[in-house]
Amino acid sequence: MTPCRKERPVGRGLRANDIGLVSIVRCQNLSEITRHLVAAAMGRDKADLVIKGGDLVNVNTAEIISGVDVAIKHGRVVLVGDAAHTIGEGTRILDATGYYLVPGLLDGHVHVESSMVTVTEFARAVLPCGTTGIFMDPHEIANVLGVEGVKLMVNEGRGLPLKVYATMPSCVPAAPGFEDAGAAIGPEDIREAMRWEGIIGLGEMMNFPGVLAGDEFVHAEIAETLRAGKVVTGHYSIPETGTGLQAYIAAGIASCHESTRKEDALARLRLGMYAKMREGSAWHDVKATIKSVTETKVDTRHAILVTDDMHPDTLVTLGHLNHVVRRAIEEGMDPIRAIQMATINVADCFGVSRDLGSISPGRCADILLVRDLAGMRVEKVIVDGELVAENGELLVPLPDVTYPELATHSVHLARPLRAEDFIIRIPAGEANLARKKGNSHFTTVRAIEVIEAKVGTRHVLVQLPVESNPGTGERGVSASAEHDIAKVAVIERHRGDKGIGLGFVKGFGFKEGAVASTVAHDSHNLLVVGMADDDMAFAANTLAKCGGGMVAVSHGEVLALVPLPIAGLMSDRPVREVARQVEELEAAWRRLGCRLVSPFMTMALLSLPVLPELRITNRGLVDTVAFKFVDVFNPEVEVVRA
Amino acid sequence: MTPCRKERPVGRGLRANDIGLVSIVRCQNLSEITRHLVAAAMGRDKADLVIKGGDLVNVNTAEIISGVDVAIKHGRVVLVGDAAHTIGEGTRILDATGYYLVPGLLDGHVHVESSMVTVTEFARAVLPCGTTGIFMDPHEIANVLGVEGVKLMVNEGRGLPLKVYATMPSCVPAAPGFEDAGAAIGPEDIREAMRWEGIIGLGEMMNFPGVLAGDEFVHAEIAETLRAGKVVTGHYSIPETGTGLQAYIAAGIASCHESTRKEDALARLRLGMYAKMREGSAWHDVKATIKSVTETKVDTRHAILVTDDMHPDTLVTLGHLNHVVRRAIEEGMDPIRAIQMATINVADCFGVSRDLGSISPGRCADILLVRDLAGMRVEKVIVDGELVAENGELLVPLPDVTYPELATHSVHLARPLRAEDFIIRIPAGEANLARKKGNSHFTTVRAIEVIEAKVGTRHVLVQLPVESNPGTGERGVSASAEHDIAKVAVIERHRGDKGIGLGFVKGFGFKEGAVASTVAHDSHNLLVVGMADDDMAFAANTLAKCGGGMVAVSHGEVLALVPLPIAGLMSDRPVREVARQVEELEAAWRRLGCRLVSPFMTMALLSLPVLPELRITNRGLVDTVAFKFVDVFNPEVEVVRA
Repeated sequence: MTPCRKERPVGRGLRANDIGLVSIVRCQNLSEITRHLVAAAMGRDKADLVIKGGDLVNVNTAEIISGVDVAIKHGRVVLVGDAAHTIGEGTRILDATGYYLVPGLLDGHVHVESSMVTVTEFARAVLPCGTTGIFMDPHEIANVLGVEGVKLMVNEGRGLPLKVYATMPSCVPAAPGFEDAGAAIGPEDIREAMRWEGIIGLGEMMNFPGVLAGDEFVHAEIAETLRAGKVVTGHYSIPETGTGLQAYIAAGIASCHESTRKEDALARLRLGMYAKMREGSAWHDVKATIKSVTETKVDTRHAILVTDDMHPDTLVTLGHLNHVVRRAIEEGMDPIRAIQMATINVADCFGVSRDLGSISPGRCADILLVRDLAGMRVEKVIVDGELVAENGELLVPLPDVTYPELATHSVHLARPLRAEDFIIRIPAGEANLARKKGNSHFTTVRAIEVIEAKVGTRHVLVQLPVESNPGTGERGVSASAEHDIAKVAVIERHRGDKGIGLGFVKGFGFKEGAVASTVAHDSHNLLVVGMADDDMAFAANTLAKCGGGMVAVSHGEVLALVPLPIAGLMSDRPVREVARQVEELEAAWRRLGCRLVSPFMTMALLSLPVLPELRITNRGLVDTVAFKFVDVFNPEVEVVRA
Repeated sequence: MTPCRKERPVGRGLRANDIGLVSIVRCQNLSEITRHLVAAAMGRDKADLVIKGGDLVNVNTAEIISGVDVAIKHGRVVLVGDAAHTIGEGTRILDATGYYLVPGLLDGHVHVESSMVTVTEFARAVLPCGTTGIFMDPHEIANVLGVEGVKLMVNEGRGLPLKVYATMPSCVPAAPGFEDAGAAIGPEDIREAMRWEGIIGLGEMMNFPGVLAGDEFVHAEIAETLRAGKVVTGHYSIPETGTGLQAYIAAGIASCHESTRKEDALARLRLGMYAKMREGSAWHDVKATIKSVTETKVDTRHAILVTDDMHPDTLVTLGHLNHVVRRAIEEGMDPIRAIQMATINVADCFGVSRDLGSISPGRCADILLVRDLAGMRVEKVIVDGELVAENGELLVPLPDVTYPELATHSVHLARPLRAEDFIIRIPAGEANLARKKGNSHFTTVRAIEVIEAKVGTRHVLVQLPVESNPGTGERGVSASAEHDIAKVAVIERHRGDKGIGLGFVKGFGFKEGAVASTVAHDSHNLLVVGMADDDMAFAANTLAKCGGGMVAVSHGEVLALVPLPIAGLMSDRPVREVARQVEELEAAWRRLGCRLVSPFMTMALLSLPVLPELRITNRGLVDTVAFKFVDVFNPEVEVVRA
């Protein structure tokens, strides 16, 4: 299925270019236009556009074929070869001498929300990089707005020159019972969604323990997808290639993007699973995983390159899927095979190769003009027979996007937060928690220790000084720059009535102030890390006011703010502007003392209770190894690692 | 989609074997059993069958992997590797040491009717050869019984261990206006059929001139198929790889089995079309077409091996798709790649690789045990985890088949035929047609000249003596052994009221008697070739009495008869018995003077008015180059080639 294009407003500021833009050709469903395509191929009707004399990267046969013309009518390729007889008076000609003709790249697994922009602005960023189709998993917005959020993004995608397919998120919330997300998705929703145009399958099945344990709920979700004849995408994130992986594949799960080692990817390929090799902003897996094919002679038909998550600055500086293809080639992959991994293999994986993935008769005319394959610098991008980008710039107007209030007012607090909300008190009657050491009282607390540039955290116990409130006599524990301990709070922000979880986090290096974010995986509650209770309240309230985002504050002053008013996840600004805002935020974090690489992702994962070892949700601290709630204070345990 | 299996009667005569047959495991829809497959892979529930220590032909990666176990539960593979933990008390073990494990072969284009047996008897013949799935095009029965005939064969296929998918025939009748078939199929029928379980796409689109001319009817059929998300299969039978082929592919046609040269197949592969390379009883295309991949280094993902038409004797003597794989290997194809061309590539072509085409977790456990790959001698055949054939013999009972009267009484004549019906008279008033030559009168007649072992015929003019009936004074022309000229008649036999076409045929070598057949492409009317009018009537009446078939007679005596009571196309007997009957018929043909190789196919194509140069239907002689009816007598034309 190819999403139908509706008329979209053609705005001002059109750049002239060599194939003209007077009539914007939209790609129609093949079934409706076969007679017209045939007429053009036969020369009875003349082509709209002929690309002349390029070197075809033929992903069907894995060959370069030189001096090829491509004739295009109604947005689709009608002929690949000598197109002289298809040229008439009205036919536009694009000379491709010296260029490779590469099929438009297809990203087989991507979370648009990770780029912090709308689907429209994402399209504006990635089309010039040569990405002409994506298979997005709108998992983040689903955790905030549920099925309605998925619909919003799918519908937004339908108006764009980027071909936007979506998988229906499967694990919302990620850890039922341990957190309060904005919504929940279940088998009934999956069944319904499989009927929507644009839904191509089930989103990454992260609950692999549930799959392996035979959990009825997750298997019902899989069943609904299989019954609809659609694709179940996977997420098997442990370095295990034996029984568990086999069982996971036996459940009908067709692909997985969580390989991090050569052997992970090779095992998937051998077991008939699509191995999606990932090169995103945070996870750089291609170097290792590509060895599964470069160091063997195996058939690469099930190997795929994906981005998964790309932050705004990566899109601006490195590009998108063209960067991943380039990385694969740098690691020794044959360029044609690498391009197959981002084109025809992806189309095959999702069953859309009749429409996409190759430059062949009948397919959408999504074609890149590239001078050097290894560098994958995309000079011209043609979508549905229309030149849409050139030298990194989009040439066509995109529709204005307006998200409804449901999305733009997604942060709901019962009342403004106060400094007192962040006090971590020693429970009354447990005076024995504190132990005297020198002149002060100390107590042992659990803390989440972050590890730079890693997904995991450590579950540690730390001794911190006890402070007494002379007025009330209450005793509590504060953040401590000396111990590199900050407070962390997760405030349920979808309805505003599900409470606050409080705890300690070690390793960010903060000396003062507070940071907050509504990007807090996967429930995307309001996450605050800070050294001062009043700054924590101020940071949280600042985000609540602007509908969500990321902020750094100090002494009651906003140092930097990235407003993300759409579901608290996405900006309504272009990706370059967002990248600049994020850069300013990084600078503010450094001013507050944090020296970590990619600290935002590290922070945003503090609240994801399916990652080891200790996490925090609005319901409290979760030991994610034992899968149980634990208390901040725990006098029984004697081990102190800090 | 995998056809569901209904309970089928388990008859007597079960052979004991090493994995037992007490409970016959049926393969269920994946969506319904994912939890059970996982439980077995994890070892919580034990496998039904473990095949131990085979050398896996891994078609996913194109590797041989040695010493592999395959664990099977509920008819599907749950684990490929070390299966020790899946073995319990009830688990049957099959030692595969010294065997290759090959996925069950899939025939991507086959007309079951060409084997002159029911789908059930076809399954009995091909399962022991390792064919576990077919994509049949019931085009012949459709010409006799229309949509109802297709339904009958599809339904018959659903009860079998052979996985039977069907394409809905697209060109019934083959040449509307030139012949009277038993039925017609149009876009409305296609739309309806796309909803039936078991229908996988549209049957070979033989009307390529219609496709290229933009004919609304054929494009409507294609559109209905594409709208249903199903596959349009092709038939582009001219040696042209330029504009026409490109236009044909642009129409959404995904595959074609009509390549006869290396360049035909290579062009299809390069244009993103599945090139099905054919090795049937009559057409031996693999030798030439396989060069498209053996003499190049192109990706073989779109290359497929098919049989198209296999006669009973070929099935008995050479095998089925295993023979085609063997032929490809003999012609230089790497064995693993050749096997891919009959397994995973076929499954991908039809979008069923989640269920079929590889030995991978989740897929149906259709597995062959083979000692030498190059020879493709299949020793054991496992279907849905059950040993169904061994050393060429089927081990499991197949259900009894009863076709309804609609099918078993498909030959309808208005009345028994008489010798006079076959007289070819010189039209009254055209006395000048005859010219004197020596003592006799001669006239010029058109004749269809057959060419041994070729599809084409020549359109020739022959001078034959004129005979006068002393009683009536009528003048006519008879068959002439001296000139190697027989009479040919096509009698409409579906309703019995659409007349008889009469003409002459040259080249069969008959000296006496007559032969007749209700296998007469594509309308399958009653076709008679003979030297004597009374024998022609006798042959025709003999077939009418037995519901159709093929017969040879002489002087009022039946020399040999192949009864084909199902639609006049298929026997209700096993393929070996039919092969023996056909052998007897061949002997009878030789006794009547015919020395041609494969004369039945040559005869059966006399009536197909889409093949060059001259053909005959119940409506008369058709010049199939000019596409017009022509008269037997044509005094204007002076050219005499015979």
